[in-house]
Amino acid sequence: MSSNRPTLVEPRTLKGFQDFLPARARQRNEAIAKLSPLVERYGFVPVETPVLEHLDTLLGTGGENTNKELFRFLSPEEDPIAMRFDLTVPFARLLAQYPEKLKTPFRRYAVGPVFRADKPGPGRYRQFTQFDFDHAGTNDIAVDAEICAIMTEAMKALGAPSQRLHINSRKIVDAVLAGCGIAELDRQRHVLRVIDKLDKVGLDAVRAELGPGRMDESGDKISGVGLDAVAIEAIERFLEVTGATRLGVLDALSNSTATSKALDEALAEMRDLAGCLDCLGVGEADAIFDPSLARGLDYYTGPVFEMKLPSAPQFGTVMGGGRYDGLVSRFSHQAIAATGGSIGLDRLLAALEELRGTPLPSTHVQVLIVTFRGVERRKYLELATELRRAGIAAEVYFGKRKASITDQLSHANLLGIPIAIIAGSDEFDKGELSIKDLGEGAAAREGIDLRDAYREAGKVGQRTISRAELISSVRELLDR
Amino acid sequence: MSSNRPTLVEPRTLKGFQDFLPARARQRNEAIAKLSPLVERYGFVPVETPVLEHLDTLLGTGGENTNKELFRFLSPEEDPIAMRFDLTVPFARLLAQYPEKLKTPFRRYAVGPVFRADKPGPGRYRQFTQFDFDHAGTNDIAVDAEICAIMTEAMKALGAPSQRLHINSRKIVDAVLAGCGIAELDRQRHVLRVIDKLDKVGLDAVRAELGPGRMDESGDKISGVGLDAVAIEAIERFLEVTGATRLGVLDALSNSTATSKALDEALAEMRDLAGCLDCLGVGEADAIFDPSLARGLDYYTGPVFEMKLPSAPQFGTVMGGGRYDGLVSRFSHQAIAATGGSIGLDRLLAALEELRGTPLPSTHVQVLIVTFRGVERRKYLELATELRRAGIAAEVYFGKRKASITDQLSHANLLGIPIAIIAGSDEFDKGELSIKDLGEGAAAREGIDLRDAYREAGKVGQRTISRAELISSVRELLDR
Repeated sequence: MSSNRPTLVEPRTLKGFQDFLPARARQRNEAIAKLSPLVERYGFVPVETPVLEHLDTLLGTGGENTNKELFRFLSPEEDPIAMRFDLTVPFARLLAQYPEKLKTPFRRYAVGPVFRADKPGPGRYRQFTQFDFDHAGTNDIAVDAEICAIMTEAMKALGAPSQRLHINSRKIVDAVLAGCGIAELDRQRHVLRVIDKLDKVGLDAVRAELGPGRMDESGDKISGVGLDAVAIEAIERFLEVTGATRLGVLDALSNSTATSKALDEALAEMRDLAGCLDCLGVGEADAIFDPSLARGLDYYTGPVFEMKLPSAPQFGTVMGGGRYDGLVSRFSHQAIAATGGSIGLDRLLAALEELRGTPLPSTHVQVLIVTFRGVERRKYLELATELRRAGIAAEVYFGKRKASITDQLSHANLLGIPIAIIAGSDEFDKGELSIKDLGEGAAAREGIDLRDAYREAGKVGQRTISRAELISSVRELLDR
Repeated sequence: MSSNRPTLVEPRTLKGFQDFLPARARQRNEAIAKLSPLVERYGFVPVETPVLEHLDTLLGTGGENTNKELFRFLSPEEDPIAMRFDLTVPFARLLAQYPEKLKTPFRRYAVGPVFRADKPGPGRYRQFTQFDFDHAGTNDIAVDAEICAIMTEAMKALGAPSQRLHINSRKIVDAVLAGCGIAELDRQRHVLRVIDKLDKVGLDAVRAELGPGRMDESGDKISGVGLDAVAIEAIERFLEVTGATRLGVLDALSNSTATSKALDEALAEMRDLAGCLDCLGVGEADAIFDPSLARGLDYYTGPVFEMKLPSAPQFGTVMGGGRYDGLVSRFSHQAIAATGGSIGLDRLLAALEELRGTPLPSTHVQVLIVTFRGVERRKYLELATELRRAGIAAEVYFGKRKASITDQLSHANLLGIPIAIIAGSDEFDKGELSIKDLGEGAAAREGIDLRDAYREAGKVGQRTISRAELISSVRELLDR
């Protein structure tokens, strides 16, 4: 390294964050372009709130974990501020802040980055994109059913090979816990947080943590809820209830646990939800009732939802949601019942990519216009303009001055561009062009290096057309 | 306020930030949906980088102002980090970081929020959305011409009634300044920053600041560049050069300033740019050469661009850009020439909204399904499902339990929903529905309150259809 060069800044992505290169960025854009009209068909309209909020807006809404995980700092005015950790709390703020402009019932969707300063790990990032849809203004369970319907429809729209939406009700869990003698809200929440770890740590660890506590992997003591063996067994029995159908699970629940008015009401509500799901065309295989579903966030008050991919369980929860009738009351004396769902786009798309197994195409460019030194670039710009005006995506090769045709075709190959237009001064003089079918492109997309093939085959797949045939010839090749 | 209610958190947006309620959020989404295919036709592919970067990645790239305006803090690992102030510096980082995956020539676009902790003011926000498109891998001026073409095409795509792209060249400015005896980079940049304020502070203030300095509005001393009268006059003459055409401006420039090899080369490059703009169909009225254009950021090295709305000059610059051949060298010994443009979406859309004068519609919902107490909500869900499966956006009214038909139609009116489906138990029993044309909707969109009209007119615009005619009847009304 020469000493009179300036010191370089090492180009690097922040720990826990990720760059989206073209194939994955395109995949996400396309997903959003499919999901937006889907939720709009259900009557949802978009809103967008800033990435930053006053700290007190966010603090204490999600539970102790999210409090710890806030990226927080001071504004230029020295006010405590933080980056949002979800899109739900800002939505609750909006409802309270604009009672005149956002009259309930109000259905909104929002897409954007959220931030959690937790420990990064495989598939766990500090910034991730959520796609949320929420309804405010009723506690009618029919709306929760619509949220579930959107979630299952979204999975199909994105091409998921299988799906399973787990549905539970905080009201059922609370009634069961009250039946076990756990009446205080704080203890109930503690139990929920322990249950929420079931998938991650297994039943034995959960059992220990519901009791006296346990040691975690690093040997640190995790304090337990302190329940007795009878309560723990009752909870365990509850967690393990299953059934062949949604109504079957509810029947099994009402048979296996001590009855109470609260439980009966909660079960009736879920029976109603089951009926609504049927009307909305949500199949029994796609959405099940699962008593072991807890959800990590504190603000839920009714039905809760988590979507998983049965064929890619290692990706965990790819969508979540539930009813949060109390959240708006943090900001307003006017109580506004609300429910909604949230799609963890990054994780879901990473899972679908892995399931699909083939690499994603990174470009939609349809034509590469090869350039020659010694030819006026303006001639190439004119060709490109003609193609673009016809709605055909075209790139003029502007790279290294010395790039050969082979170099340029290899660039097309790398990006998966299916057609090249080749013209030197001879062709322009004669009013002609060469059009080359790179649509051995199938091969290109499979990553086969065509450079050698081009070198050997010379003008394979290439033919001469008149200048006037440019658009029709390109269309013809594209239509194949 | 009752004393046993919990303390409320005041719902409020952070100073300098803004919420996008449905009409404006939809406007932005629709703009992005128009701009993305436009740049894709030019061969650009999407990438996305995190909102947060290492502080050293950003520091010193934009100039002293952007350094001061960084939202900066510490990561959980105590590393200095900051929120990105543009999308260009992260792009330069990407190019250096992924030389194998992002082979040049490379054309990328990116959309996302950027952050500047400067003084908020009318139309000046601390978070705003940029839509950027950049080409890396050549210093060929033809690509700058393509960037200009995209900017002018984007204005048309978004429905701007008029536009003017101002184009200048840092190379011309540098040659002229060198001709005035200002050879050092730091002083040249200082002059540029002063010239950049021309629109804001006027010629007299700029003249003073090029000389000994001046007092600003609040009486603070702004130190000057310290040029003598001869140099200031030469700069002033340069700034005021105009011409009837792009080539005319260049001719006038070469006549009015002292000639030099550097200036001749810079002018030749701009003549080439003018020729390329012609080929790309960029009209003389839409894009002019303007010697007074400076651009605030330090990293530009060649052509620079700023788009303004002649019919809404108060909104200032709505797009900007230019060539920055040195920026990637901060991160890599491999020099990569690059150029690009950036659309300030929020400001541009606010300007277009003001020019349009009519309020934006906030919803695309086509049908509101009115609900009655005492009717199974499942029947309504089935109607909605049928409509949505036919691609028709439908919302079932779920709000206050006691909402009357009038309340519900008023909700449709507020959102601009054009059709209502009304059915009570009688209708369901007979296999019938009422369909109501709210498409006095034109009136609704103009903000006329139809509640009284509904009350008086009773069943105006309403007719009975059979259940089986649902989709066809709705389509018929929508097609009108």
